[in-house]
Order: sequence, then structure tokens, then C-alpha cells
Amino acid sequence: MSPLTSGSEKGRKELRAVLGDKGEELFAELRSAFPDLARLYVEYPYGEIYSRPHLDLKSRELIAIGIMAAQGTARTQLITHMHGALNVGCSREQILEVVLMSSVFAGFPAALNAWGAAKEAFEEHDNPEKGETR
Amino acid sequence: MSPLTSGSEKGRKELRAVLGDKGEELFAELRSAFPDLARLYVEYPYGEIYSRPHLDLKSRELIAIGIMAAQGTARTQLITHMHGALNVGCSREQILEVVLMSSVFAGFPAALNAWGAAKEAFEEHDNPEKGETR
Amino acid sequence: MSPLTSGSEKGRKELRAVLGDKGEELFAELRSAFPDLARLYVEYPYGEIYSRPHLDLKSRELIAIGIMAAQGTARTQLITHMHGALNVGCSREQILEVVLMSSVFAGFPAALNAWGAAKEAFEEHDNPEKGETR
Amino acid sequence: MSPLTSGSEKGRKELRAVLGDKGEELFAELRSAFPDLARLYVEYPYGEIYSRPHLDLKSRELIAIGIMAAQGTARTQLITHMHGALNVGCSREQILEVVLMSSVFAGFPAALNAWGAAKEAFEEHDNPEKGETR
Amino acid sequence: MSPLTSGSEKGRKELRAVLGDKGEELFAELRSAFPDLARLYVEYPYGEIYSRPHLDLKSRELIAIGIMAAQGTARTQLITHMHGALNVGCSREQILEVVLMSSVFAGFPAALNAWGAAKEAFEEHDNPEKGETR
Amino acid sequence: MSPLTSGSEKGRKELRAVLGDKGEELFAELRSAFPDLARLYVEYPYGEIYSRPHLDLKSRELIAIGIMAAQGTARTQLITHMHGALNVGCSREQILEVVLMSSVFAGFPAALNAWGAAKEAFEEHDNPEKGETR
Repeated sequence: MSPLTSGSEKGRKELRAVLGDKGEELFAELRSAFPDLARLYVEYPYGEIYSRPHLDLKSRELIAIGIMAAQGTARTQLITHMHGALNVGCSREQILEVVLMSSVFAGFPAALNAWGAAKEAFEEHDNPEKGETR
Repeated sequence: MSPLTSGSEKGRKELRAVLGDKGEELFAELRSAFPDLARLYVEYPYGEIYSRPHLDLKSRELIAIGIMAAQGTARTQLITHMHGALNVGCSREQILEVVLMSSVFAGFPAALNAWGAAKEAFEEHDNPEKGETR
Repeated sequence: MSPLTSGSEKGRKELRAVLGDKGEELFAELRSAFPDLARLYVEYPYGEIYSRPHLDLKSRELIAIGIMAAQGTARTQLITHMHGALNVGCSREQILEVVLMSSVFAGFPAALNAWGAAKEAFEEHDNPEKGETR
Repeated sequence: MSPLTSGSEKGRKELRAVLGDKGEELFAELRSAFPDLARLYVEYPYGEIYSRPHLDLKSRELIAIGIMAAQGTARTQLITHMHGALNVGCSREQILEVVLMSSVFAGFPAALNAWGAAKEAFEEHDNPEKGETR
Repeated sequence: MSPLTSGSEKGRKELRAVLGDKGEELFAELRSAFPDLARLYVEYPYGEIYSRPHLDLKSRELIAIGIMAAQGTARTQLITHMHGALNVGCSREQILEVVLMSSVFAGFPAALNAWGAAKEAFEEHDNPEKGETR
Repeated sequence: MSPLTSGSEKGRKELRAVLGDKGEELFAELRSAFPDLARLYVEYPYGEIYSRPHLDLKSRELIAIGIMAAQGTARTQLITHMHGALNVGCSREQILEVVLMSSVFAGFPAALNAWGAAKEAFEEHDNPEKGETR
């Protein structure tokens, strides 16, 4: 396994701050199976982008949720970042507002699916021992 | 032309708060050409969603920009909402952070195109008399 | 729970006409879990759009199926509206024609997935007691 | 230039029935520049799909418009098929209903852009000598 | 069941060359359930496109994987074509490179999901008796 | 302007190898207007991904073209990478094969638009003095 660079350490710290234990599990799983993607995943999104100034983590997570709710192709990551939003201090009401925003910009099926993801994220958050690793 | 309902008035007020003169122009153009869409456009996105609690207009505009930057199919509306973000008090640095976020969640072509939209929005904002109505 | 407005009642009636029992179940589930989305969902798509003139419900359902077959991000809703199409009088042959249309405008993977959705919808329609609520 | 097969002739006839002169122009342009794509374009969408039973051309064109309005990536083809819809007997009101449907399933930016396409198609239809070949 | 045309036979041969047993199973399933789609599926993608010159099957499969990794809406077909890529001689390293390419052009959620698909395809390839028919 | 890191230099070299003068112009434009995006653009896609082993630049460019032809949201970048494909030794026939592949996986409107992009790229390549900077 290639040694982690300083960029990786910065990214892992940010990843942990945003996604908490779920981020650690995802990184560990990626690192054993496809270490190059694990390194790039922590270095670029977290080491380079999430660690930047001008937007706090709460704003970044709400934007991430909005994007993935609209795309409709990243349900697992959407749920993970709903956990991330709760981790960094967003309220459930704020997450649900983003779900409603997605109906405006991407239509009702997108919003209904994002609501389903929120329901699953909230249930996992209330019962973390039942939550599956993603 | 059908009379505007109270829902329409609420939406128009919100539309003006977010998009300013551009919102007024868009509404006027729609109202003369396709009044049903004009009514639905102010009533649903603005009268129903943007006027809700839990997220301020700055957050809503950054989320809208993130979604449309990632979609890549709504350049005109992306530029309009970049104006909206500036209107409601977002900084250019914050808008550019959302552009960078879009590279993480939707790839570099999306981010490059969103940067092009931001450049156009910022130039129009500095020279409003030259900006074209959208 | 907030009282339903007259717009909601109009939308519920239209929702029931299109989606039948599945629509009722979806509305009930939404109403207990996220009542604002339940209200908006019946008022906008059904109260405002589906209830309009110029297109009958059969045409609306075939268009909805075409859109969601092409998007590929709303499998649950695609199946629900295939039931809706059958409810309002479309034939299975017509639904399968829309599946074939999606190959032209969105490619073969979209059409293959839409065919899978149709197969599931038709089996549920033939054995409604086995169909899961969606 | 490779000789056209019988499948091509069937497709060209169907293409002409749907898209009229615009279809002829598009085919001629493709045939001189990229004859294999010209052949496949008339044989598959038109020779194989549009010529099938169960859905009339009016329904096919409204479905095509719905799909492309929702996709937001095929403005030229969307305008072309709005002409096609008018050619085969759809009303402008029906085309605008599909535009409104797209707001439900793909969001308001999609619907606003589809309305812009409809406006352009209708103006060209009223002033065919000014319409540009697409 | 309608007799297969010569175009169908050419396509089936190509389908078998690319997708092997999985292609045969998919064709058989389609042929019994929706024979028109079965015919079109072998004739157009395989009979017309995959059988063309200028690109070998290895290149075609890597391009197909890149497209579907970026789309994020065709997981089953993505896995099937990862098997196809291995069948025609691509290495696992090459498939994983395409996964990394998708992060550049479609973002990290797309790449993470494509990696999940690759993991599943590789495990099935190592344990074919456990692999489910797709 | 922040000094370029070693990762940036590696990326710029790769960018030049793929996109030639167009890459240089794009980088120079980005660097003066939004230097952080310029740095990330050369470091991640080119410094990290394009410079990796297992796929040669010809394969990478054909995959990039396939992805962007299917997405339909990155016309400028699609044309740029069609130049890139020619720069690294792909033939026009190979680029046009990818255009045809896009009809299978993303539908005919995507393929028609990708053909339009190819036509523009090839004309610019034949008359570079007329080509506009993108």
C-alpha cells in the first residue's frame, strides 16, 4: 500500500470532520480495495475543496445534497452526505428544505426520491447500530 | 389576461427579492406570452418554496447555483441565479466556491462551464447597462 | 397536521383518478411523514397540471412514462405511472411503444431498464395482492 | 455514396411524414457529410420505431417533445420535433401542455427552456421563410 | 415468434462475441418477453454499430463503460459491459482506469458507483457460478 | 498569483500533450481569471489521471469523447477533446465511431449533436487560423 501523502492526511481530517465514522469506513474499504481511488477521493474533494475558505461545512453539505438530489444517480452518497449535514450541525428541517428545492430545479420524482433518502438517513441517525455501512 | 391570485402576489414579491429587475423582466415576458406558465412560475418556486422558513435566501441561491452548475442544462437560469445570489448578499467568492464544488460532484466540464457563467454574470453585474435581458 | 386547502382537494381527486390506490397510499405515507411535501405534491402536479385541458390523461401518462424512461433516475415513479397509464385506459402495447421510443431519444440501456419497469408493473397489475406499495 | 436500402426508403418516407422539409434538409446534410449516420438515422428511429403501430404520430411527437424538454440537451432537435408535432396535427396548446408537464418531471428551468424552444418553433412556423435550417 | 432476419443473426453473433453467455441469456429473456425489443437490440447496437470497422471491441467496451459510468443510470448494463470488456481482452486495470476517468468528467459519486459496479463484476467473474443473470 | 506546485507542472505537461495550443490557451485564460481553478484543473485531471499508466492517450481521448457526447452538456469541451484526440493520433474515423456509439448508449439526439461538434472540430483542424479559442 502506497504511503499517504500530506495531502491525503489533510483530506482524511476533513473527511472525518464531515462524514464522521461513515467517512472512515468508506475510506478504509476503498483503501484496501482500490487504494489509488481512496487517495484521490480524500485528496481532491476533501483535501482540496472542502478545506477551502468562503463557505462553511454546513453550506457545503446543503449544496452537496441539493446537487445529488437533483442528479438522482447517487442515492448512497446522498444519504451519506445527509448524515454529513447532521454531523456538521445542519437541522433536519434544513435538509428537508433542500429536498423541496430539488422539486423546483429537478422535478417531483427527484424530490420524492430525495425525501426517501432523507427518511432513511434520519432513521439511521436515530438508530445508528442498525445503520448499514455505506 | 387572467387576474393574479394572492399566491401570485406572494410569489412575485419573493421573485423580486431574489432576482430583482431580471425577475421582473422575465415575469413580464412570460406573462404576455404564456400567462399560465408565468403564474405557475411565480406561485410554485417563489410563492411556495423560496418563501419558506429554515433556509435564508443566500443559502437557497447557493444551492440553486450548485444544482444548475451540476445539471449543465440551464445556463441562462444559472446566470440569472448568480445575479440573484449577488442580490441577496452572497459574495463572488462564495459563488466561485460553489463552482469548485460542482467539479467534485459533477466533474470538470460542469465546473468549467459554471465558471464561464459566473464570469458572464459578474461582468453584467459590473456593467448592468450592457447586460442582456434573460 | 395543517388543513388541506381547496387546491389540495382538487389535486387529490386528480391523483386518485390517475394513480388510483397507489396514489392514495403514497399521499397517506407522505402526509404523515412530510405533510408539506404531500400538500405540494398533490397541489402542483395534480391540482395544477394534470387537471388542465388540451391533453387527456392517457396522453399525459404516456408523456410521463417517456420522460422518466429517458431520465432513468425515477424507477419507482416510472412503475407507478405505468400503473397510472393502465388505470386511465392506455394499453400495454402503448406503454411498450413508449419504451421503444426511449431507445431512440435516450439509448438502449434506458429502454432496457424501462422494459424491466414495465415487466414489473404488468406483473403487479396481474397480481395486485403481491404488488408492493410504492 | 452507398445505395439506400429498402429500410432506408421506409425510414425516409416516415421522416418526411413527421418532420417535412426540415427532415429532408437534415437528411440531405447528413447524407453528404456522414452517410452512415444518415442511413442509421432514417432506418432506426423512423424506419423501425416511428413506423410501428399502437401509437399515432401525434402521440409520438408529444412524447418526443416531453423527453427532450426534460433532458434539456437537445434544443435543436426539440425545436425540430415541435415543428414535427405541428406537421402531424398537434395543436400549439398541446405542445405547451407538454412544456408544463416538463416542469413536474424535470423542474422549472427545463420548462422555461422548453417554452423558449416552443416560442422559436412557433415563430418559424408563422414565418417559414425566416426559419433557419436545422 | 417472428423469424429472425439476417441483420438479427449478424447482431447475435456480435452480441455473443462481446457479452458471451450473459448476452445470450439477456437475448433469450428479451426474446420470450418482448421479441420486438430483442430483435432491435441485437440488430442496432450489435448488428449495426459494434460490427463496424475503425474501433476494436476492446476500445468499444471501454468507451461503453465510460459512458455508463458517467451516466449513472444503467448499473446493470455497466456491470454487463464490464464482463464484456473482460471477455474481449481488456484488463481489470484498464477498467479501473475508466472508473477514474469518470471522476474527471462526471464527478466522484459517479466514480464511486462505477467502482462498486467493477467490484461486483470482478467478483462474479471470479465466481461465475454465483453470478446472477442480468 | 500563487506559485505553481510540482503537481501543476506535471499536469501542464500532460495538458499540453493532449490538448496542445488549445490547452495552453485555456490554462492561461483560467490562470488570470480564476487561478485556483486553473491549478486544480491541471493538477487533478491531467497531473493525476491522464498521466497514469494502463490506458494510452488515444484511448483516454476516445473515452472522454464518448462520455461528453452522451452527456450532451459540454459541447465546448467535447470539441476541445476532439482536437485532443486528433493531436494524440486518433483518426477522424475513430472519432466518428464514438459518435455512432453514443447513439446506442444515449440516443440519436446526442449522436446528432456530437456529429455537429465533430464537424466543427474537423473544420477548425483544417483551418486552424479560423478556429476560435475555446
